[in-house]
Amino acid sequence: MSDSVKYLLDEKDLPRFWYNIVADLPNPPTPALHPGTGLPIGPDDLAVLFPRAVIEQEVSTEREIEIPGPVRDIYRQWRPSPLYRARRLEKALDTPARIYYKYEGVSPAGSHKPNTAIPQAFYSREEGVRRIATETGAGQWGSSLALAGAFFGLDIEVFMVKVSFRQKPYRRAFMESFGATCIASPSDLTAAGRAVLTDNPDSTGSLGIAISEAVERAVARDDTKYALGSVLNHVLLHQTVIGQEAMAQMEMADDYPDMIIGCTGGGSNFGGIVFPFLGEKLRGGRDVEIIAVEPSNCPTLTKGAYAYDYGDTAHLTPLVKMHTLGSNFVPPGFHAGGLRYHGMAPLVSQVVAEGMASARSYHQNECFEAGLQFARAEGIIPAPEPNHAVRAAIDEAVACRERGESRAILFNLCGHGHFDMQAYTDYLEGRLHDQDYSETELAMALSGLPSVESC
Amino acid sequence: MSDSVKYLLDEKDLPRFWYNIVADLPNPPTPALHPGTGLPIGPDDLAVLFPRAVIEQEVSTEREIEIPGPVRDIYRQWRPSPLYRARRLEKALDTPARIYYKYEGVSPAGSHKPNTAIPQAFYSREEGVRRIATETGAGQWGSSLALAGAFFGLDIEVFMVKVSFRQKPYRRAFMESFGATCIASPSDLTAAGRAVLTDNPDSTGSLGIAISEAVERAVARDDTKYALGSVLNHVLLHQTVIGQEAMAQMEMADDYPDMIIGCTGGGSNFGGIVFPFLGEKLRGGRDVEIIAVEPSNCPTLTKGAYAYDYGDTAHLTPLVKMHTLGSNFVPPGFHAGGLRYHGMAPLVSQVVAEGMASARSYHQNECFEAGLQFARAEGIIPAPEPNHAVRAAIDEAVACRERGESRAILFNLCGHGHFDMQAYTDYLEGRLHDQDYSETELAMALSGLPSVESC
Repeated sequence: MSDSVKYLLDEKDLPRFWYNIVADLPNPPTPALHPGTGLPIGPDDLAVLFPRAVIEQEVSTEREIEIPGPVRDIYRQWRPSPLYRARRLEKALDTPARIYYKYEGVSPAGSHKPNTAIPQAFYSREEGVRRIATETGAGQWGSSLALAGAFFGLDIEVFMVKVSFRQKPYRRAFMESFGATCIASPSDLTAAGRAVLTDNPDSTGSLGIAISEAVERAVARDDTKYALGSVLNHVLLHQTVIGQEAMAQMEMADDYPDMIIGCTGGGSNFGGIVFPFLGEKLRGGRDVEIIAVEPSNCPTLTKGAYAYDYGDTAHLTPLVKMHTLGSNFVPPGFHAGGLRYHGMAPLVSQVVAEGMASARSYHQNECFEAGLQFARAEGIIPAPEPNHAVRAAIDEAVACRERGESRAILFNLCGHGHFDMQAYTDYLEGRLHDQDYSETELAMALSGLPSVESC
Repeated sequence: MSDSVKYLLDEKDLPRFWYNIVADLPNPPTPALHPGTGLPIGPDDLAVLFPRAVIEQEVSTEREIEIPGPVRDIYRQWRPSPLYRARRLEKALDTPARIYYKYEGVSPAGSHKPNTAIPQAFYSREEGVRRIATETGAGQWGSSLALAGAFFGLDIEVFMVKVSFRQKPYRRAFMESFGATCIASPSDLTAAGRAVLTDNPDSTGSLGIAISEAVERAVARDDTKYALGSVLNHVLLHQTVIGQEAMAQMEMADDYPDMIIGCTGGGSNFGGIVFPFLGEKLRGGRDVEIIAVEPSNCPTLTKGAYAYDYGDTAHLTPLVKMHTLGSNFVPPGFHAGGLRYHGMAPLVSQVVAEGMASARSYHQNECFEAGLQFARAEGIIPAPEPNHAVRAAIDEAVACRERGESRAILFNLCGHGHFDMQAYTDYLEGRLHDQDYSETELAMALSGLPSVESC
């Protein structure tokens, strides 16, 4: 057998539960704090933003949380997603490593994001919500919530970071095709947006600003909730269908990963593939090395502080303890828009801070190089975000060749690059430059971190 | 069960043979004629263009032709493709009809085209070919051959119709990402291209011109063959994996189509889904109504002549008997680039001419309207080409509602619209206009059809 192999589960093996890593972590998660009082927030504080069922999941310590039937019915359109053994890539690399990848690009939105958009929209509709406001960077999350909104009859309002809104008209068209409204952020629809525009009318926006705008819209209207596509515990929870399926598929392959690699922006892709395996290890099961990969230009895990910080620019969100570059840090331009966030999921931060995973960073040119090598061997053009995972997987496979060691490497290919072809054109034409972030600006952003005592 | 349902075959049910409709047609196909002599062409005449194995398939009368192992190994990356019962769409239409669609957008190129690109590249490599020249309109075929070239280590040279080359930079980037060369046609690389540019330096090209260029390149170089993505018998043959799988999946659904709908450009998508069912009927099996759907602005089956004509503008290709608008007919602009061809597969033409299928046409705005209705119900944005099939399927389902009749309607969703979002933006912003073709120009193009006696 020399060709790449697909491992496909039967529909009956679609997970029935989401897996909650909190039940198995050695230490309990740190509490989120109210942005006004600095005291731990309770469910009531969050009720203005999220449906009740989601808030319960956010603070749950149960190991397994049942996936509602209507959510599984929709998951079934593309799940269980395939896991592949990348034999053609192994051959191209002449490596004794066994490279596996889980492929989430088969979802209708082309990424893993619908795994959480669907349940978030479902719970909202169950609780009588009419409209969901959200933000999107590269557009993967906005597209997924637009899709979920079409399925559940909800109005979706997406604040899209202005630079992406301009660079990615196809993503906007995708959201609008599903009936969503897409607004360039900063906008004049919110006080947060107007404040930024007053300071800087030419602002191209940031995820932090767009979050402020969406949160403000949800707070202002009774029939509207907010939804986040990463970072929070319930989002990572919903993504664990990825890792659970991957465990069963590795078993089909009669193998087990020695190493799992995930790219990290807000942490949901990483948590999704990693947590079920990590839980197994924490419960005394098989060992596995875990690597988080992030862009060198937004090095949250590798250069950030592990501290309490706001999730947004206008400081409307709760404070959470996470790796952060400071909520005012603006990374230099690069194409992996989904990884341009100053913070990190508290659960991922905790896992890295407590030594359960390591982190590394890459510049974008070396990631696109890896992405093209992968595409030519395996036939799938990855999104710029998972190119970071592809780069690390290739590096590890080459290291295996050099050491003459056969390890099983698993990574999550969280989305395809169909809406990112301009980035590939820029790469192919030598127009991508690996600009470095400013050490001074990072130091300033970090020095502005809130003092938890003063909140 | 109220939600849409997926029918997924096991990998072991991947077809082992392509199905050749020629074995079951009531009349033998008409022979292709040499463009110089007007006499029936033999295998040797085609050897300059195609690998020997492909030529044998082109003229074969065997019912089943074995799919080579290495081709099946690659098919397996995305095949068997899913078949869905579109219950959410049925509900939105409030119809008693059962709507099924086969989804070919799961291939790495996003359409059904790799089903033939993979074997064509395989046979070329087996016979020592180094390079394949081809043409592409909307880019689906060029993308698929680029992918196949990457898998089999062949250089791929794609002449892309200039108007699409300019309008669809992402398609070009896709091909280049797989290492293919993409050239705007008409180009100055060929005599055919230079002749067009001398006449009209601003020519935006046509599929007929691009075919002439690719054929000329293949003829001029010993290590180069030509590949066509539709029209020819062997191409339709390769696509029959679609219909064979769909038959097995309809059986899983415990149902059988009363009606099959396929959009037609060159005819390969239509032949792929239809021929296995039609063969069953021709061998005395179950009856099924068959409908070909084409754009009103390129109405080959509904307004063309059934006559011998050239496949290209420069008259380098063999003459085949088909429905044709005349090789000089240039349709007005519309977005379904894959359906902008003056001719039609001889086998599809024969099936329509001999009353085994009917044909109808739609304007593009009504097709995009149907595409969006489908997307919001089923979550998949179709390419502009299959929107024609979606339109017909919705119309038939509405007719079922009006007649209070429950029929099973099957269509092939041959590709997704990720690279066609500009068309959706234009539609959503009211910028698509249903220009009509000129009756005078069509009459002129038809009057220029070659007299077979004079060839």
